[in-house]
Amino acid sequence: MSIPEGMKFNDQGLVAAIVQDVDNGEVLMQAFMNAEALRLSLETRVAHYYSRSRNKLWKKGESSGHLQHIQEIRIDCDQDAVLLKVKQVGGACHTGFRSCFYRRLEADGSLKEDGEKVFNPDETYTA
Amino acid sequence: MSIPEGMKFNDQGLVAAIVQDVDNGEVLMQAFMNAEALRLSLETRVAHYYSRSRNKLWKKGESSGHLQHIQEIRIDCDQDAVLLKVKQVGGACHTGFRSCFYRRLEADGSLKEDGEKVFNPDETYTA
Repeated sequence: MSIPEGMKFNDQGLVAAIVQDVDNGEVLMQAFMNAEALRLSLETRVAHYYSRSRNKLWKKGESSGHLQHIQEIRIDCDQDAVLLKVKQVGGACHTGFRSCFYRRLEADGSLKEDGEKVFNPDETYTA
Repeated sequence: MSIPEGMKFNDQGLVAAIVQDVDNGEVLMQAFMNAEALRLSLETRVAHYYSRSRNKLWKKGESSGHLQHIQEIRIDCDQDAVLLKVKQVGGACHTGFRSCFYRRLEADGSLKEDGEKVFNPDETYTA
C-alpha cells in the first residue's frame, strides 16, 4: 500500500496522526508522521511516528512491546491528518495509562486523573 | 476556567486539538489552537481554533451555524494536545460530511468515501 496522492505534509514534512482504539473508540494518543513513518505504517500495519523532540523515526512499542496494530486508516478532508484505528497492546501512554488523554480538565482549571492505568512504567521501561 | 498550567504550545504557539463526538465517539476533525483559541473555547464552551492557512482565530460554525458545544476537555501526557468531546451541530466538515475523516484508505492506496453526508455545502455556505 502506498501513500495516497495529495497528502499535505507541513513545512516540517509532517502530518498529524490521531490514534483511536478500534474496539471502544477511545482516543489513545496524538502524534506526527513524516512520509517514511506513514509508509512504514502502511507497509507493516504497525504504527510508526516521527518524534519531533528526538528528531527521529519511532516505532511505537519498540522498547515497551506496546505495539499498535492498525486495523483501519482514515484521511481527513484536507489530507493533513490521518486517523488510525488500532488494536493497542498494553497501553498507549508512557505513564502507564491506556490513553495519553488520562486527565480531564475540571471547571477550576485543575487536571483530574481518571484514566485507566494498565501497566507500571518503572517495570516496563527497565533495561 | 483558565488555561491549565504547563501547556506546551509549539514554536508557532499552537497545540493540536482532536474533536470527538461525545455521543458516539466518532472522531470529527483535527485542528490547532493558539492560547487565545483555547482560552475562548474554555470561556464560551464553544470550540475556537487557529487557522494556519488564514493566520487567524476561527470560531467553528461562525458562518455555517455548525457549532461544537464542548462537553468535556482532556489533556494529553505531554500537554501539547487537547481532546474535545462535543455536541456537533450539523456536520464538522466543510464538504458536508459529519466527520472530516470521511474517507478510508483502501489496500490499493485509493480513498473510499464512506462517511455520513449531513448537509449540502452549496446551500450552507451561500451568503
